[in-house]
Amino acid sequence: MQSWRFNGTGKPLVLEEVEVPHAGPGEVVVDIKAAGLCHSDVSALDDPEWMASFPRLPMTLGHGNAGVISEVVPGMGHWRVGDRVGLAPLMPDGDAIGYGAWDGGYGPKVRATDANLVRLPNELSFERGAMATDAGLTSYHAMVTRGGAQAGMRIGVIGLGGLGYIGARIAVLLGAQVYAADVNPATRLLADEIGLAGVAESITEFTDKDLQLIVDYAGFGTTTAQAVETLAASGTLVQVGLGRTQSTVDTKTIVFKQLQILGSLSGTQQDLTELYALMRGGDLNPPINRITPDEIPDGLERLRKGGVVGRIIARYEN
Amino acid sequence: MQSWRFNGTGKPLVLEEVEVPHAGPGEVVVDIKAAGLCHSDVSALDDPEWMASFPRLPMTLGHGNAGVISEVVPGMGHWRVGDRVGLAPLMPDGDAIGYGAWDGGYGPKVRATDANLVRLPNELSFERGAMATDAGLTSYHAMVTRGGAQAGMRIGVIGLGGLGYIGARIAVLLGAQVYAADVNPATRLLADEIGLAGVAESITEFTDKDLQLIVDYAGFGTTTAQAVETLAASGTLVQVGLGRTQSTVDTKTIVFKQLQILGSLSGTQQDLTELYALMRGGDLNPPINRITPDEIPDGLERLRKGGVVGRIIARYEN
Repeated sequence: MQSWRFNGTGKPLVLEEVEVPHAGPGEVVVDIKAAGLCHSDVSALDDPEWMASFPRLPMTLGHGNAGVISEVVPGMGHWRVGDRVGLAPLMPDGDAIGYGAWDGGYGPKVRATDANLVRLPNELSFERGAMATDAGLTSYHAMVTRGGAQAGMRIGVIGLGGLGYIGARIAVLLGAQVYAADVNPATRLLADEIGLAGVAESITEFTDKDLQLIVDYAGFGTTTAQAVETLAASGTLVQVGLGRTQSTVDTKTIVFKQLQILGSLSGTQQDLTELYALMRGGDLNPPINRITPDEIPDGLERLRKGGVVGRIIARYEN
Repeated sequence: MQSWRFNGTGKPLVLEEVEVPHAGPGEVVVDIKAAGLCHSDVSALDDPEWMASFPRLPMTLGHGNAGVISEVVPGMGHWRVGDRVGLAPLMPDGDAIGYGAWDGGYGPKVRATDANLVRLPNELSFERGAMATDAGLTSYHAMVTRGGAQAGMRIGVIGLGGLGYIGARIAVLLGAQVYAADVNPATRLLADEIGLAGVAESITEFTDKDLQLIVDYAGFGTTTAQAVETLAASGTLVQVGLGRTQSTVDTKTIVFKQLQILGSLSGTQQDLTELYALMRGGDLNPPINRITPDEIPDGLERLRKGGVVGRIIARYEN
């Protein structure tokens, strides 16, 4: 089969013939139907700092996958050939599908274990299933698992891009009052679609809203500091976005308001199960840009340039 | 009676004759036996930013108090004249004894309510009882209530000054393995007395200790950043000290290690009750510098200059 192979920082992905994978003990093979493109793959391609995450090269990127099980070994009989699944990327040993040593969805077949597999409800397309395993999972984990979002809360969201749109919408669907900030006027036009109570250029415009939780999906350093300034006493800031890797924050405000700041990274299989359940209602529909697997390098180039609205998903026809 | 009156930023405390306070409904009067001097009183005297905390002037500072009840009104019969008590400063409405509009222990008698009063065990001196209501309370709240310190944990402490000494000792008494950092070589000599597993100039020297909790009692900005760098994955940083009011932190590390950063301010009546129970064993004896009430302004001047080891406590002879 042909997969896009990653050879390290500064080198382009190369489409190569690789051996078709077979399921080892405790594994299944999933025929990928939809693979999400992620900005962190651009970082992997461009930034030497990320190479520590990839101990074995060449390998196949792609950590946002959904598909159909095509091979099951003895001992994995709780899965059947033909089952629709999404793949939570993390392995128990810290490895991750398409994001470590384990080949991912920029190739047509992927091995997976019980730690990854989540049933994809029939109501959900493979594209939405794939979107949920990466952008969705990260958004959900930050908003719900780390942030504790629930009905009736007053919540701020910074950044309405790929992650922030989904995070804000999840909070709205849970019954929270959600105020969002984005520097891009075009993105602010999504407010009604998401169901926001308010939208502004900066989260500091909602200082009077007594926000209990702010999730920063942008992470431009200044946004972290603005969230600290804006939160109500005893409030929580969940940091997800890493537009910049440093922030200067007012520790006096953190101490005097007894705030908590929580880092949030990726998400778990349990998160994905909960997210699929939430999505079955059909009310979480962030914009999706479909491409073919041939176009994966072009898609990453679009992400590199910026300005993409919604998620880019490669749709396999296998 | 004569009290040291605070008249605002940049003005010296003035010893003035004020009316003897009497207990209103729901109140008692406490004859102060020991009043702790606190660096935040120096800030109140020097820094205009702190004036918002003092809505009514003149008033009497002093928020670390222990003494004996001298007056009880009907409805407060669960307290008796002669009861030994420590005073947790915070009022339910956010005011605080000696730290808001409510006169404190830089005068010989203080009104107090059920929200403040904690029985002082006979084993504890008034000096230690007073120390516990302020430095002790703040240290305990950060280490135990916010930080969740308990037996078997690997804990870092930054700063072994007034607060840090107590915080580190509390963690040792609870059965944790405690590693501390202080820039002052003289202070590092306290390691054995406190029972530390290790001591160094910077907390980053304990990166290999897999610290689950670091409490930063210094707060020099760089210390916050060093704690973020040093913590194990999923670790907790409790920020207490405010040597500087800003810090530049590595948000990438916060996200990738999924850290939590918690601001901690003062403490509660419940904290004080727990702390007195812990102190009854006689094993928490930070250095105390006794002065007379006449010497309160001189004592604050010593705090302003820095280098004081241990707590300064004014001992009343009334």
